[in-house]
Amino acid sequence: MRELGNDMFHLAQELWPINRSITGAGLRSSLMHLKKEYLPDLALNEVPSGTQVLDWTVPQEWSVKDAYIICPDGRVICEFKKCNLHLVGYSTGVNLKLSLDELIGHLHSLPEQPDAIPYVTSYYKKDWGFCISHREKMKLSPGIYEVYIDAKLFNGSLTYAELLLPGDTSEEVLISTYVCHPSMANNELSGPVVTTFLAKWLSSKKDRKLSYRIIFVPETIGSITYLSRHLDYLKKNVIAGFNVTCIGDDRTYSFLPSRAADTLSDKVATHVLEHIDKSYKVYDWNDRGSDERQYCAPGVDLPIASIMRSKYGEYPEYHTSLDALGTVVTPSGLYGGFTALKKAIQLLEKNCYPVAAILGEPHMSKRGAYPTLSVKSGNNSPATLMNFLTWSDGKHDLIDIAKKIKVPGWELFDVMDQLHTMKLITIK
Amino acid sequence: MRELGNDMFHLAQELWPINRSITGAGLRSSLMHLKKEYLPDLALNEVPSGTQVLDWTVPQEWSVKDAYIICPDGRVICEFKKCNLHLVGYSTGVNLKLSLDELIGHLHSLPEQPDAIPYVTSYYKKDWGFCISHREKMKLSPGIYEVYIDAKLFNGSLTYAELLLPGDTSEEVLISTYVCHPSMANNELSGPVVTTFLAKWLSSKKDRKLSYRIIFVPETIGSITYLSRHLDYLKKNVIAGFNVTCIGDDRTYSFLPSRAADTLSDKVATHVLEHIDKSYKVYDWNDRGSDERQYCAPGVDLPIASIMRSKYGEYPEYHTSLDALGTVVTPSGLYGGFTALKKAIQLLEKNCYPVAAILGEPHMSKRGAYPTLSVKSGNNSPATLMNFLTWSDGKHDLIDIAKKIKVPGWELFDVMDQLHTMKLITIK
Amino acid sequence: MRELGNDMFHLAQELWPINRSITGAGLRSSLMHLKKEYLPDLALNEVPSGTQVLDWTVPQEWSVKDAYIICPDGRVICEFKKCNLHLVGYSTGVNLKLSLDELIGHLHSLPEQPDAIPYVTSYYKKDWGFCISHREKMKLSPGIYEVYIDAKLFNGSLTYAELLLPGDTSEEVLISTYVCHPSMANNELSGPVVTTFLAKWLSSKKDRKLSYRIIFVPETIGSITYLSRHLDYLKKNVIAGFNVTCIGDDRTYSFLPSRAADTLSDKVATHVLEHIDKSYKVYDWNDRGSDERQYCAPGVDLPIASIMRSKYGEYPEYHTSLDALGTVVTPSGLYGGFTALKKAIQLLEKNCYPVAAILGEPHMSKRGAYPTLSVKSGNNSPATLMNFLTWSDGKHDLIDIAKKIKVPGWELFDVMDQLHTMKLITIK
Repeated sequence: MRELGNDMFHLAQELWPINRSITGAGLRSSLMHLKKEYLPDLALNEVPSGTQVLDWTVPQEWSVKDAYIICPDGRVICEFKKCNLHLVGYSTGVNLKLSLDELIGHLHSLPEQPDAIPYVTSYYKKDWGFCISHREKMKLSPGIYEVYIDAKLFNGSLTYAELLLPGDTSEEVLISTYVCHPSMANNELSGPVVTTFLAKWLSSKKDRKLSYRIIFVPETIGSITYLSRHLDYLKKNVIAGFNVTCIGDDRTYSFLPSRAADTLSDKVATHVLEHIDKSYKVYDWNDRGSDERQYCAPGVDLPIASIMRSKYGEYPEYHTSLDALGTVVTPSGLYGGFTALKKAIQLLEKNCYPVAAILGEPHMSKRGAYPTLSVKSGNNSPATLMNFLTWSDGKHDLIDIAKKIKVPGWELFDVMDQLHTMKLITIK
Repeated sequence: MRELGNDMFHLAQELWPINRSITGAGLRSSLMHLKKEYLPDLALNEVPSGTQVLDWTVPQEWSVKDAYIICPDGRVICEFKKCNLHLVGYSTGVNLKLSLDELIGHLHSLPEQPDAIPYVTSYYKKDWGFCISHREKMKLSPGIYEVYIDAKLFNGSLTYAELLLPGDTSEEVLISTYVCHPSMANNELSGPVVTTFLAKWLSSKKDRKLSYRIIFVPETIGSITYLSRHLDYLKKNVIAGFNVTCIGDDRTYSFLPSRAADTLSDKVATHVLEHIDKSYKVYDWNDRGSDERQYCAPGVDLPIASIMRSKYGEYPEYHTSLDALGTVVTPSGLYGGFTALKKAIQLLEKNCYPVAAILGEPHMSKRGAYPTLSVKSGNNSPATLMNFLTWSDGKHDLIDIAKKIKVPGWELFDVMDQLHTMKLITIK
Repeated sequence: MRELGNDMFHLAQELWPINRSITGAGLRSSLMHLKKEYLPDLALNEVPSGTQVLDWTVPQEWSVKDAYIICPDGRVICEFKKCNLHLVGYSTGVNLKLSLDELIGHLHSLPEQPDAIPYVTSYYKKDWGFCISHREKMKLSPGIYEVYIDAKLFNGSLTYAELLLPGDTSEEVLISTYVCHPSMANNELSGPVVTTFLAKWLSSKKDRKLSYRIIFVPETIGSITYLSRHLDYLKKNVIAGFNVTCIGDDRTYSFLPSRAADTLSDKVATHVLEHIDKSYKVYDWNDRGSDERQYCAPGVDLPIASIMRSKYGEYPEYHTSLDALGTVVTPSGLYGGFTALKKAIQLLEKNCYPVAAILGEPHMSKRGAYPTLSVKSGNNSPATLMNFLTWSDGKHDLIDIAKKIKVPGWELFDVMDQLHTMKLITIK
C-alpha cells in the first residue's frame, strides 16, 4: 500500500519537469514515457492541426525552446527552464526591448498569493506573457527590459493516447484524464499518474467482465477530438466512467456528478465515497469545470462522474506553482484516490442483478452453510447472507443491495459468490 | 414604478364606494367603469336568473336603494349610504318596528374587533340583517327601533366580463378575479384592480405568444357560470392561470397551489416568489377558499394557482371594514403584486424547451462571443451562457433551467435570445 | 373496552401453561382450545413429518413428558413441569449422570439478566440442554448430576389452523400469527390471542366486503408450509395483510414494513399508527425477524406488514421467562394492539376510490345538507365534507384522502356514506 503510493509519486516526479500543453513535444513525450515505462499497449494518436472536431478546430502545435526576461540590471528572471509556469501557455515568439510600463501588462501575478507563480494560457488568442510571483513583480525597477521567447506555432498535430482493454462483454468503462498541464501536481499530474496505475492494474487483471477504454487527452480540445471520432460507439457501449483529475492530495474526497446525476457512475461513486469517507464533499453540476463538460453535454450524455480529492478551483494552491509534489500531492493522497477509483471499478465488475433461486428463505442449516461460513470481514455473517438473499429479487443490483443493508458493496463479494456457488441465487 | 402603483390605487379609490354583490347594479357599473376607462374591449355578459349552471342556479338579482335603522332616540345608525358593509348582502326589503330584543339577532358584530363592521352575506337563504361595530352595538338602549331596507330580489341577471387577447398560439393563460365584494380593499378591490392593469399591459403587448382570457366574475357562482359555458374549451387550451385575489397589501407574499400542485402555474409562481421574496408564505390545498375551488375541482382540473400578498382569512382586517385603502392596501402593495404576476406571465411567454444545436461545448472564443457579451444583469456572463447551454437538452424548459442554475428566469431572457441568434440553440 | 382487554388477557392465561413448539401436542392442544372455546370454524391441518415444503422438510414431531436435573445434594432443578422454558426446545431424550464440568455446556443462562431463564431451541440439530437463571447456575457445586429428559422425536405431523371468512369479493386480507412459543407473553401469546379476537369480531361482522384468511402457524416452518400449499392463490388474491406478533404490552407501538414498503398494508398501518400514537417506532426491513421474512421473500412478495407494540428483540424481557403475563403483557396492552389492527381492517373494508359526481363544487345549501349534517366527530363538518369531495377524483383512495386532509380515515366513514347517499360521489 505504501509502496504503491510511492510508485505513483515517483511517476509524478518523472513527469514533473516536462512542459506539457494542449499540443506539442511535452505532451507527446509525457505520453511516450507512460507507454515506454508503464503501459506498453498504450496507443498514441496524432490529429493534424486544422482538423475540424465537433464545433472546434485542432489548433496549431506549440513549440518552446526557451524564454526569459533580462532586467535593466542584467538579472535574468522568469526563466522558463527553471519553471515552465513562467511562460504563458501558447505564447508566441518575441524578442523585444520594453520599458517596465510596456512590460507590466504582460506580467501575470497574484497579489493575494504573493509567492505563487500563477498558471496562465492563451490558447485561442495570439498573445505572449510571463507569470511571476507578485513579490518579485513588485521589486522590478523602471528601465528597459529585454524579453526573449523562443517559441513558435506551426501546423503540427494534437496528441492523445488510448488503451483499450477488452473484457467478456462489450459494455465499457471510460476512464479519461488530461495531460496538458505543465508543472503542477494535483491539477494535473495526479490524474495521469493514478490513471496509469489503474490501467496497469486493469491490464494485469485476467477476468475482466467489462471492457475498459482509458484515454489520456489534452483537456477540452482533446476530449472534444476524442468524442468527434468515437461518439456513436461510446454512446452505445459506455455504461459508466470517470474523469480522473485532482486526485492526489490527502485533505478530502470530493464528488462531482454527471449532468444526469443518476447514472451508474454516480451510484457507484457515491457508494464508494460514503463508505471510505463519510465527510466527502458533494458538488453539483454547476461546479463542473473539466472534461465532464464535454462528456455529459446535451446529446453526448455519457455517464461520466468525477471522484476527486481536493477539487480544482477549491484549494488555495490551485493553478499556481504552489500546487507542488510533496506539499500538496503525497503518496498517501495518490493512494487514497487510486483506491477509491479501484473500488468503484471492482464494484462495476461485480455488479449484477442477483435473483433468489428458492421461494421463501432457504433452509440454511440443512446445507451446513451457517457454521461453515468463513468470517473474514464481519459482513460475511449469516445475517448478511440472509440480508443479501432477501434483496435478490432481480430489481436491485449489487450496489442497491449494499445500500439497502448498509455495508460497503465490496464486502459482499464473498457472500454473493458463496450464494452463487450454493445455487441460492442466479445472476441476471 | 411609483406611478403605476398610484394609478392602481386610484382605480381602487374609484371603485371603492360602489355596492357590489354577486349580481346587481353595483357589479354591473363596476365592470362598465373598467370597460369605459381602462379596457375598451372588455365584453360584459348577462346570464338570466334561473339559468342552470353546473350544480347551481343563477340567483335572483339584488337591488338596494337604501337601508338604515332609527333608534328609539331618533338617531340613525347602520346607514347603507355611509358604508355599504352595514347591510347584510342579499338582505330582503323590510320596514319594521322592533324591540331591541327582536332586533339584536339581526345585528352582526365582532366582539374581538369592536371597531370593525363585519362583512356578512346571505345569498341562498332569504334573510335580512345589519352589520355594526361591536362598540356601537353595545351602546344600544332598549326601546322600539325602526328598521328600513329598500331592497328587492327580482329575476334579472348575473353579470360577468371577459377580455380575450389572442396570441400566436391557441395556448391560453386564464386570469380570473372576482368583483362581488363591496367596500373592502385587499379582499377584494386589489384583485380586479391588478387584473385590470395586467390586462392593459397585455393588451398593449404586440408580440404575445400565448393567448389570454381575462375574466371578472362574481366569486363562486360566477366562476361556476363561466365554467358551465366554456369548460371543454378551457380544458383543451388553458396551460396556466391565476386566480387574482388579495394582492394589494405590502406585508408579505403568499402562494396557494393548484389542487394538482405540480402544474406549470405552480412551477412559475413558486419560481417567481422564491426570487422576489424568499420568505413568501406557502399554503396548501387545505387552505383554499376562492375560485380555485371550482377551477381545480375534480373533473375540471384547470392549472390555476394563486399568487397573493396577505391571503384571505390570514390577516386581521379580513372581511371587515378595517380592510381599507391606505391602511391595508397601498400603491406599493399593489405594485408588488402586479410585478409578481407580470413576471410570471413574462416567464410563461418566454418559456420553451431549448435544445443545444452543437455537440459538446461550442467554441465560444472563435465566435468572439465571450468578450462582446453585454453584461447588463450580472447573469449575462459567459458562465451563465455556458450554464444555460448545458441544460439545453430539450428536457428542461426555461424555468427548469433557471432553477438548475439558481437565477431568476427573467434574467435569462437575453442569454436565451443571444444563444438563439448565434444558432447555438433551437427552440422546441 | 376494559372487558375486551380482560377477555384477551384471560385467553392468554388459559394458553400460558401449555408447552408449545413448532410441532407436538402443546401446539395441537392450543389450537384445539381456540377452536373449542372461541372459533368453532377454525380448521386444523396436519402435515406429516418429512413432507417437502419449499426448500424445507417438515421435521419430526417432538413429544416431552418430563425433564429435570437432580443435583449432587438431591435437589431437583430445571423442572420442566414447573416452567417449560427450562428445557431446550426439541431436546432429545436422555438419562445421564454427569459431572458439573460435563453438564455446564448444556446449561444456558444470561449473565446480564441473572434472574431470567432464557428461551433456547435446537430444531434442526439434534441436541439437548436446559435453561436456567444465571444466579442459580452460579450456585451449582461440583459433583455428579443426574439429567433426565423424557422426550422423543418421531414421525408425526406439524399442525396449523386456518379460518376462511368469505366476503363480497375474492380480495383477501391475510392475517397470520404464530403459536410455537411456550410460556412467554408478548412473544408470543399476544399474537394468537389478539388474532383470535380479531377473528371472532370478523366472524360476527355481517357485511364483509373483503375475504379474510386467518392462520395460526408455527413460525418459519409453518408459514413456509402454508406458502407451499397456497402460494399461487395468495399471490392472486391477497391485497393486504399482517403478521400479528408482540402486540400485548402497553409501552409503545411499532411498525415493520413489508419488503416493498409501499403496499396497501404499509399505507394503512402507518396511517393508523400516526393517528393513534404519533410517537410510534418505525423499523425497516433490516429489522425483520418473523414470518414476514417468508411472506415478503423475493418471488413470494405478499403485502404483509407488522403492527406491533414492543417489537421482538427490542425489549429487555424478550425471549426469557421475564416476558410474562401481568408484568409485560396487560389487558390494556392487548386492547391497544387489537384496536390498531381493527382500525386498519375497518379502513381496508371501507377503502375505495371515490369520484365526485358533479363538476365544480356542489351547491350544498340547496340540498339543505350543511345544517342537517350530524356532527359526531368534529370531522363530520361541512369543511370536512368539502375537503373529502375535492379529493374525490378517482386517483385518491379513502386513505389517501384522509392523509391529504390530515384526519384519521375512520373519521371519514360517515362523511363518505353521506356523500354517497346524496349521490355526490360514486365509488370506483
